[in-house]
Amino acid sequence: MKLTQILLAFLALSFNSIKAQSIKNTNSFTVIPLGVKGGLDESNLSSYLVAAKGSEQYICLDAGTINTGLQKAVQKKLLIASSAETAQKKYINSYFISHGHLDHTAGLILNSPNDASKNIYALPSVIDVLKSSYFTWKSWANFANEGDNPILKKYSYNYLVPGVEVSIPASNLKVTPFVLSHVNPYESTAFLVGNDNSYLLYLGDTGADTVEKSNKLNLLWTAVADKIINEQLKAIFIEVSFDNSMPDKSLFGHLNPKLLMQELEKLNTLSAGKLKSVNIVITHMKPCETCEPVIMDQIKAANKLGLTIVYPKQGIAMSF
Amino acid sequence: MKLTQILLAFLALSFNSIKAQSIKNTNSFTVIPLGVKGGLDESNLSSYLVAAKGSEQYICLDAGTINTGLQKAVQKKLLIASSAETAQKKYINSYFISHGHLDHTAGLILNSPNDASKNIYALPSVIDVLKSSYFTWKSWANFANEGDNPILKKYSYNYLVPGVEVSIPASNLKVTPFVLSHVNPYESTAFLVGNDNSYLLYLGDTGADTVEKSNKLNLLWTAVADKIINEQLKAIFIEVSFDNSMPDKSLFGHLNPKLLMQELEKLNTLSAGKLKSVNIVITHMKPCETCEPVIMDQIKAANKLGLTIVYPKQGIAMSF
Repeated sequence: MKLTQILLAFLALSFNSIKAQSIKNTNSFTVIPLGVKGGLDESNLSSYLVAAKGSEQYICLDAGTINTGLQKAVQKKLLIASSAETAQKKYINSYFISHGHLDHTAGLILNSPNDASKNIYALPSVIDVLKSSYFTWKSWANFANEGDNPILKKYSYNYLVPGVEVSIPASNLKVTPFVLSHVNPYESTAFLVGNDNSYLLYLGDTGADTVEKSNKLNLLWTAVADKIINEQLKAIFIEVSFDNSMPDKSLFGHLNPKLLMQELEKLNTLSAGKLKSVNIVITHMKPCETCEPVIMDQIKAANKLGLTIVYPKQGIAMSF
Repeated sequence: MKLTQILLAFLALSFNSIKAQSIKNTNSFTVIPLGVKGGLDESNLSSYLVAAKGSEQYICLDAGTINTGLQKAVQKKLLIASSAETAQKKYINSYFISHGHLDHTAGLILNSPNDASKNIYALPSVIDVLKSSYFTWKSWANFANEGDNPILKKYSYNYLVPGVEVSIPASNLKVTPFVLSHVNPYESTAFLVGNDNSYLLYLGDTGADTVEKSNKLNLLWTAVADKIINEQLKAIFIEVSFDNSMPDKSLFGHLNPKLLMQELEKLNTLSAGKLKSVNIVITHMKPCETCEPVIMDQIKAANKLGLTIVYPKQGIAMSF
């Protein structure tokens, strides 16, 4: 490790935050990862709080783990609250769920008894899973405003329309959803989060277009390319679940380092070669005894474009 | 704290285990709590490994949290394995699920991709929830042997019949299920675990008969009373979710200290006043900033019978 790298790592740890590559030195978003892993470990599953810089109103992108992540955020004083439970009520404005798999929803369901009244934003196919699998009175009480009776009306479903931006009340954020393919035809979602003229793109679980026999990522890349060209897109949160040893037929709608870089090379071409200005944040690595370091090594080796790769950590804030 | 209490606490911590009150100095069961809380904290939800003393074949009673609990058990060398994932495959013989609520099932579902082929034992109403809410291809892949296609057949459902004992292959354990009422008519389950002539009773979530307008606890107490009289029952794991300030109409199928002691007084009467020979292990306290110490104080104050009350801790082994 070079001296500058050591110094940067030390500074990041010292301030409990990762200040990622900044464009024009203006930070537009604060991100607090509540969970970053792609499975197994119930204490650390995909969930990311995102706020406009300086705002205390966070939207929660996916909700695999909420409480354990908030405990860490409160301990580190990233969120000022007497407990994870009070932090959840105060700081989480609303939830955006990319798809219905339990590793992206468990924290929302399990913490619903403690939560305040809020909006849940998702595609209709995702809300269908929340209604039919979780808020059912069989697996949990129905804290939502539709579905099995009695409905407790704590949460309000907001049906997103692909490509149509919604404004988030009490925050400065706007969110546009895009459909992803996660074992075709099962739908997942990418959320393009805007704060004035700056953007952050979060992808839920997704396979590569070639493997999924889909054009969903191509459509997404086409839609966001101009924001890269104009240096408005600050970060892309994208999953790499497996290493390259996993055969395509066993990826189950996920990416590996090779497929990640194939997709990012397409995006770079669409973006006039300007993808280097965007932080690439790797999410959802599925844990095993050696998986995560192998994935990281393979991403490094495949990174011919010299992209800025960032690995989020639970309870460590990031600025973009 | 008295000197003897300090000494006992020190000894328990030194050996990473709680050796509870022993009958005739013969320990029959090893219990490793993988999770002990009644909600919110995804890293510590109800799940208890139980083995015949000296056996490495544990049955898993409820499965709120698996991986995080196994990480602690492996760190403390209660289970000898290179990781939580290998420990799960090696040491968990089978699962007994008391009811379908997510805080009792999430760990099983989330860790199913990593697990080995095993049996799931539950009442038909509980298996129905697993089939209709979790192993559905909407909220998760179907790793079981029935339900939505394709069926991956890693897990085999075993339909329990109330009052009918089943023998667990490769272990010395036998288990008899009893129906509990958890917001009548929603069913939960108590599991009476036998090792030769010794027994341990684990109750899933349950309301009091008076509140539930039910006789399920009375039937259970009547069924196990002779095992208390004969000093064969070593421990009762029973839930206390809320403190006494929660009004009956807001208990949602749970116990508080007052109702716990009312039920245990009934059991003591049925057991010829011999309940003092049984360890009462309190599970499923719902966390909040002050809830747990308040519940513990109220149990202590209500314990007119002088029962032995034990509080389990995640990753701390217990012997009975």
